[in-house]
Amino acid sequence: MSGTESVKIVIVGGVAGGASAATRARRCNENAEIILFEKDEYVSFANCGLPYYIGGEITERSKLLVATPELFKNRFNIDVRTNHLVQSIDVENKTVSVLNQVTGESSTESWDRLILSPGAAPIVPPLPGINAQNVFTLRNLNDTDAIKDYIEQHTCRRAVVVGAGFIGLEMVEQLHHLKMETNLVELQPQVLPPLDPEMARLIQNELTAHDVKLHLGTALEKVNVENETAVGVELGNGTTLETDLIILGIGVAPATGLAKEAGLEIGKFGGISVNEFMQTSCPEIYAVGDAVEYMHGVLMQPLRIPLAGPANRAGRIAGQHAATGSADPMMSPVGTAIVRVFGLTAAMTGLSKKFAEKASRTNRSVIVVPKHHAGYYPGAESLFLKLTYDPETERVLGAQAIGKEGVDKRIDVIATALKFRASIRDLAGLDLAYAPPFGSAKDPVHIAAFVAGNDLDGLASIVEVDADLDAYQILDVRTDKEVETFSLPKIIHIPVDELRQRLSELDPAKPIVTVCHTALRAYIATRILKQSGFKDVRNLTGGMLMQRYARSDMFE
Amino acid sequence: MSGTESVKIVIVGGVAGGASAATRARRCNENAEIILFEKDEYVSFANCGLPYYIGGEITERSKLLVATPELFKNRFNIDVRTNHLVQSIDVENKTVSVLNQVTGESSTESWDRLILSPGAAPIVPPLPGINAQNVFTLRNLNDTDAIKDYIEQHTCRRAVVVGAGFIGLEMVEQLHHLKMETNLVELQPQVLPPLDPEMARLIQNELTAHDVKLHLGTALEKVNVENETAVGVELGNGTTLETDLIILGIGVAPATGLAKEAGLEIGKFGGISVNEFMQTSCPEIYAVGDAVEYMHGVLMQPLRIPLAGPANRAGRIAGQHAATGSADPMMSPVGTAIVRVFGLTAAMTGLSKKFAEKASRTNRSVIVVPKHHAGYYPGAESLFLKLTYDPETERVLGAQAIGKEGVDKRIDVIATALKFRASIRDLAGLDLAYAPPFGSAKDPVHIAAFVAGNDLDGLASIVEVDADLDAYQILDVRTDKEVETFSLPKIIHIPVDELRQRLSELDPAKPIVTVCHTALRAYIATRILKQSGFKDVRNLTGGMLMQRYARSDMFE
Repeated sequence: MSGTESVKIVIVGGVAGGASAATRARRCNENAEIILFEKDEYVSFANCGLPYYIGGEITERSKLLVATPELFKNRFNIDVRTNHLVQSIDVENKTVSVLNQVTGESSTESWDRLILSPGAAPIVPPLPGINAQNVFTLRNLNDTDAIKDYIEQHTCRRAVVVGAGFIGLEMVEQLHHLKMETNLVELQPQVLPPLDPEMARLIQNELTAHDVKLHLGTALEKVNVENETAVGVELGNGTTLETDLIILGIGVAPATGLAKEAGLEIGKFGGISVNEFMQTSCPEIYAVGDAVEYMHGVLMQPLRIPLAGPANRAGRIAGQHAATGSADPMMSPVGTAIVRVFGLTAAMTGLSKKFAEKASRTNRSVIVVPKHHAGYYPGAESLFLKLTYDPETERVLGAQAIGKEGVDKRIDVIATALKFRASIRDLAGLDLAYAPPFGSAKDPVHIAAFVAGNDLDGLASIVEVDADLDAYQILDVRTDKEVETFSLPKIIHIPVDELRQRLSELDPAKPIVTVCHTALRAYIATRILKQSGFKDVRNLTGGMLMQRYARSDMFE
Repeated sequence: MSGTESVKIVIVGGVAGGASAATRARRCNENAEIILFEKDEYVSFANCGLPYYIGGEITERSKLLVATPELFKNRFNIDVRTNHLVQSIDVENKTVSVLNQVTGESSTESWDRLILSPGAAPIVPPLPGINAQNVFTLRNLNDTDAIKDYIEQHTCRRAVVVGAGFIGLEMVEQLHHLKMETNLVELQPQVLPPLDPEMARLIQNELTAHDVKLHLGTALEKVNVENETAVGVELGNGTTLETDLIILGIGVAPATGLAKEAGLEIGKFGGISVNEFMQTSCPEIYAVGDAVEYMHGVLMQPLRIPLAGPANRAGRIAGQHAATGSADPMMSPVGTAIVRVFGLTAAMTGLSKKFAEKASRTNRSVIVVPKHHAGYYPGAESLFLKLTYDPETERVLGAQAIGKEGVDKRIDVIATALKFRASIRDLAGLDLAYAPPFGSAKDPVHIAAFVAGNDLDGLASIVEVDADLDAYQILDVRTDKEVETFSLPKIIHIPVDELRQRLSELDPAKPIVTVCHTALRAYIATRILKQSGFKDVRNLTGGMLMQRYARSDMFE
């Protein structure tokens, strides 16, 4: 197709992926006929903004409506039909059957190219009481209106949020803004399950500091209901909580019903299989968004990545390809994600250590805690940055960052580097923007890469944050005062500046792990020891600062 | 060398590059003898923080002292000798002659490896009155103390800053904090000469809004002096200004005297020539920092890049190589730089259009002005992003960004992409972190890349922001109200949503340039026209928003 040929494109689903596909298709082909069916009342709404509207940070509901059917018509000549449910696909005859949910009428619509952007449905576990009127999921504008109406019409002092993923945490924050006493229930033993546990604990601390009650490693088992209204929950660990409101943020299941019925190929993780132009196993049918499996850029295998960024980019590609027969291929996403939790931001890209282990990838992780900009400039905040890499290929596998400021920037830099299969050496040499209000001459990204490089070169091999230390002499090189505050058990304590004179206090036959506050002085100590005849000396990455989180049982 | 061999390393200069080299050398080789000579009183001070201390943002002087000679001794076993001026190098005998500037004694020091980090000297033009007591340059802590003391001891109500580069602008901001009426003089017709003029005008607006008086395209010609004190300046354009203080931020000249005298190779731009391990033409002598020429990562030719980031990284490499005989090679910097100017941040990486032209590189530039995070989330600010690329190879050449928020992040992402010789297509597919407080599902970087891709594909070719528009029909597709506010002369005005019905008002035989506020609606209009038989239709990049700055003569 040349881009001016007539082609009839039918799109199923009108939010991120579907709306992007529709407008791109029009821009690429003025002569296409474009029909967009949306089963709900609204198209192209700001789904990532919904929690912020519930909490009142976004004050005007109209701001959530990015584009209306009228705009689609007037500006793009796109025929948007809301409240229209596509019920089946006839692949052979190239039609869909559609139910008008307002009139109840069914009809058939033909297509030359079909784009599926059905999204995903929030998971609602089949538990007693789960259908009470004040148990909500949050996926679309109707859900949002329902939650907001309920809160306005009832006295909600207490809330239970089930699921500590991104949406769960955003809702916790917003319910706290609304002054509700909030309980957070999560089946995994940590919040933000994609993160490594010690990183997640930083967020847990922030939640606790804002009086959010955490119930981790336990499941919702039952909703206690009175007069069709949930009044409490019972958890697997025996805890009972009273509540005025329940939000389920357990996860989403890809809406693949239509695709399955049409015989389209489904991937290993339950999403619709697509190629780099978002074509399904039937090349005239495209699929994008939360219902598909994208090729993951680090794992190089298809994976569900139900996030807005990939959905928007994929929609654009599908729209162009459907309208013209060609497009730039979809670039593999790497699972970059971010969430603000009160004063902290947590973000990640690529693989966490946990994820790397699960994928059986050789991996090592360093943790550094530099300031987010020059330490001497006012307002410098600690940035916790964990960098995971393959010690054999030296390739960066992923990163996690948590802090008050500058988290998004470092994760975006590393996400960019991941696209180019960067090595640790590449990160160490990046020419990043520096002036005191913005960074440091040695940026946190550089520092993490330096530490990883020193590990790879054997200059200062690291011991991971949660490693078993029993086999080591633990050499703590902090000051007396620092050690008094808290330390690991059974340490040998020699401040770094005295080390050269006190080498005889250490046993050269036994491995040594060095530790200080953030691992900088420990690194210097490691270098002194390694060059003074001590053969097996390693650095405890992240220092005592991270031990508080990595071995929190020890310090709580 | 294995890293434990004895080697004597002498370092000349103890700030960014020299201090990094010294500590890295020690960490890599415990048995090295390391002597660091610094001609001034202080080593390892925070030179990028000096303006902020003068202005009072940094309140404690001690914060500027990153490391003292005592720390170098105790922690690193490095012999730091301040107030020691290295006067000459004897390459054959491997010695330096050193003047102790306190005692007046001279001595000779031998070396196995020599690392030069002499920095650069502020340029002081030989003008009448330039030596008055209140005419200052700002390079080191002594300069800083002198300026601060002078301000404390005298009533300074007015200041003249000469030079509108990074340091000049930082000083303007800080003098404004000190409530001085500030005049800024710059020889070039714009502030921030590395930027393209229309981008610089955004900063000029910000300066003017803070009552800074701009004198652009004119030179300082004379300092009027009374009682050894500057009381005014005379400029080339005939302007006379009264002042209580003058700061010269004209630029720096690399301190290459020692190197030249020793016969080391000097590059085309006057800096010391080095290889990727920072070795000079004499491989046992290294050089780093503002005195050298780095290989520029986009131009791939040696260039002076007098910035702290490269200096620190180069120092680290030189230190390791001198101490052990090997190191990772220096990665080519791309001239990434950033400055805060009151409420705005200006940053760049790689080549500006101006720079690309000068280097005779085929180039094209798009300008986009999206919000720095989701528009529906409170606090979204406009981000002006100019992306320059090679339309033949599709490679990204550089970027400039200006805005209130999120400037550093986008420039760092593009700086990272430049390292990997990214194409416009690569930028369009980056998987960046998105949640409403941090970005948009389509990030400003994506949007710039989309626009560039549309240009390259001929979907919507662009006309550059300052192009001659005489040959075009100018189609303005904004609303009536927008056009009334301000517009280009001789426009044809058809709101985008009416365009499909009003095609007959345009002449298909004459080229058309479309324009709207930021170029989004113009893009849609371009697509409609191109697919309706209009052959030569282009988009005015940056829209009317940038025309205010690109053709400011027209709108002022």
